[in-house]
Amino acid sequence: MRIVIVVGGAKAQAWRDTIASHLRDAQIDIWQPGFTQPADFAVGWTPPPQFFIDQPRLRAFFSVGAGVEHVLHNPNLPADLPIVRVEDAGMGEQMVDYCRFEVLRWMQRRDEYVAQQAAGVWEPLDSAFSRTEWPVGVFGLGVLGRQVASAFAADGFPVNAFARSSAATEPGVQLFAEADGTDRFEAFMRATKVLMILAPLTPATQDKFNRDTLRLLPRGSYVINVARGGLIVDEGLLELLDSGHLNGAALDVFRTEPLPAEHRYWSHPRVRVTPHTAAVTPLGPASKQIADKITQLAANQNVTGIVDRGRAY
Amino acid sequence: MRIVIVVGGAKAQAWRDTIASHLRDAQIDIWQPGFTQPADFAVGWTPPPQFFIDQPRLRAFFSVGAGVEHVLHNPNLPADLPIVRVEDAGMGEQMVDYCRFEVLRWMQRRDEYVAQQAAGVWEPLDSAFSRTEWPVGVFGLGVLGRQVASAFAADGFPVNAFARSSAATEPGVQLFAEADGTDRFEAFMRATKVLMILAPLTPATQDKFNRDTLRLLPRGSYVINVARGGLIVDEGLLELLDSGHLNGAALDVFRTEPLPAEHRYWSHPRVRVTPHTAAVTPLGPASKQIADKITQLAANQNVTGIVDRGRAY
Repeated sequence: MRIVIVVGGAKAQAWRDTIASHLRDAQIDIWQPGFTQPADFAVGWTPPPQFFIDQPRLRAFFSVGAGVEHVLHNPNLPADLPIVRVEDAGMGEQMVDYCRFEVLRWMQRRDEYVAQQAAGVWEPLDSAFSRTEWPVGVFGLGVLGRQVASAFAADGFPVNAFARSSAATEPGVQLFAEADGTDRFEAFMRATKVLMILAPLTPATQDKFNRDTLRLLPRGSYVINVARGGLIVDEGLLELLDSGHLNGAALDVFRTEPLPAEHRYWSHPRVRVTPHTAAVTPLGPASKQIADKITQLAANQNVTGIVDRGRAY
Repeated sequence: MRIVIVVGGAKAQAWRDTIASHLRDAQIDIWQPGFTQPADFAVGWTPPPQFFIDQPRLRAFFSVGAGVEHVLHNPNLPADLPIVRVEDAGMGEQMVDYCRFEVLRWMQRRDEYVAQQAAGVWEPLDSAFSRTEWPVGVFGLGVLGRQVASAFAADGFPVNAFARSSAATEPGVQLFAEADGTDRFEAFMRATKVLMILAPLTPATQDKFNRDTLRLLPRGSYVINVARGGLIVDEGLLELLDSGHLNGAALDVFRTEPLPAEHRYWSHPRVRVTPHTAAVTPLGPASKQIADKITQLAANQNVTGIVDRGRAY
């Protein structure tokens, strides 16, 4: 069996070595321009257009992250090639922790206390410290969204979730299903104080959160985006932050990454920027998961995590 | 039945009114200098020395907070007067949330990302994002400490706890009991990466965390104090933060409050100061709890939360 790793930068070797440790009989190469030896499986992130032309014998492409739009947009991607995403592998826990940190920061008015400390001011502030006063709304109930929703529900937060299908129930979570009617999205937004975006970037979610939809959130609400920058129309979010309709945003993902130097997000007092680090794909568990699935596919068994091209995730 | 409220400042009226809403037949007064009408029960915080001389008929004193050292230090406190503390009433959840915020801030290297944002720098940092790499150590397994320990255990953190007695077990928590030997405290400290101080201030805990004991924590550890300032010797903590043996401290309580303007904590880059706001006594639930206990004591029934004068908490 031949496997090709198409990951840019210094991490390619680490991916190769950890996958090799689980698949001792496989020949595993790191792709570089001009590499044309036909492989059975590819593991990577954002393969160049020429990649799929040079690899006609692939049986599956494994994305090393949860999102796959970077593969689906490849102009030479064969229509029938299975794309397999990493499922959780520790990313769900990190997403929970990222969202928890942001909600607690806002609940506890921590930015104000930091400013008070810098000014040497001792002044207790009133705060809405009860979790019941902070209904959260999880947009997207996939592998990661479910973990965030259930963690907040277990902590006693009121939790709303928006999903495509009403079959996506989760204990303790108030589900708003797209399938149940066009008013469900509006109802979901109106019931939410902290919006957490955890859905994939697809034609259906592109630009979903713009000035008109974000305004459905109650005055004083917050937005967390740990999915993809393309779900938010930046100008709309900035307008509502400027007007005070929204109190804050924590953004880990952007339309262009790295976030351009001139972008207003960098310096906006209500915006917290992190460099796409909310959930790092953990090399060890993810390599094990990919290696196991390669073994299963090689034995003509089914695997989970295959992208539905119609839904684009 | 007569009740006297001895709370300073603007909150006295709110305490009076909410307790009155539960005890409609009681006469409830707010104490002020010169007030000598003998009451059956007192509800308050830091009563002045004269207070207990003027109130010879008290059947119990209710502290409106979890800590009671401010009452026990009163020179005129009758030796046999029951002191009753507020038990939880929502404070445990706040303690959990305060500690969670601090641990997540350190785990996710959030201060560095804030600095990078201010400088317009996009640079993902390596971080120890797995909860298993962050063993926490809860010093004090009372009503509040138990909640913190069990919340972190439920989240998958390794949790150590130090308690007086080996009877204080908590599911998922590694207990180090003082009763089991003098080496248990050292073992507790050496196993801990984030020390969380949640014990009362007593003669046994005064100055417990000094240069010599804090040095038992592994290099690169962290300290959270949400109990009382007197448990930490400030000079020892500062020395270990300066030397880099400790990576950070989050302090909500201090020997002198408000924290004096000249104190080094205010400006230390590794210290986060909050103004004794980690857990606010919630007026509604605490008033209900106190009113219920007054009713029980008036009917000669037993109540929980009575301070053991020998242990001083």
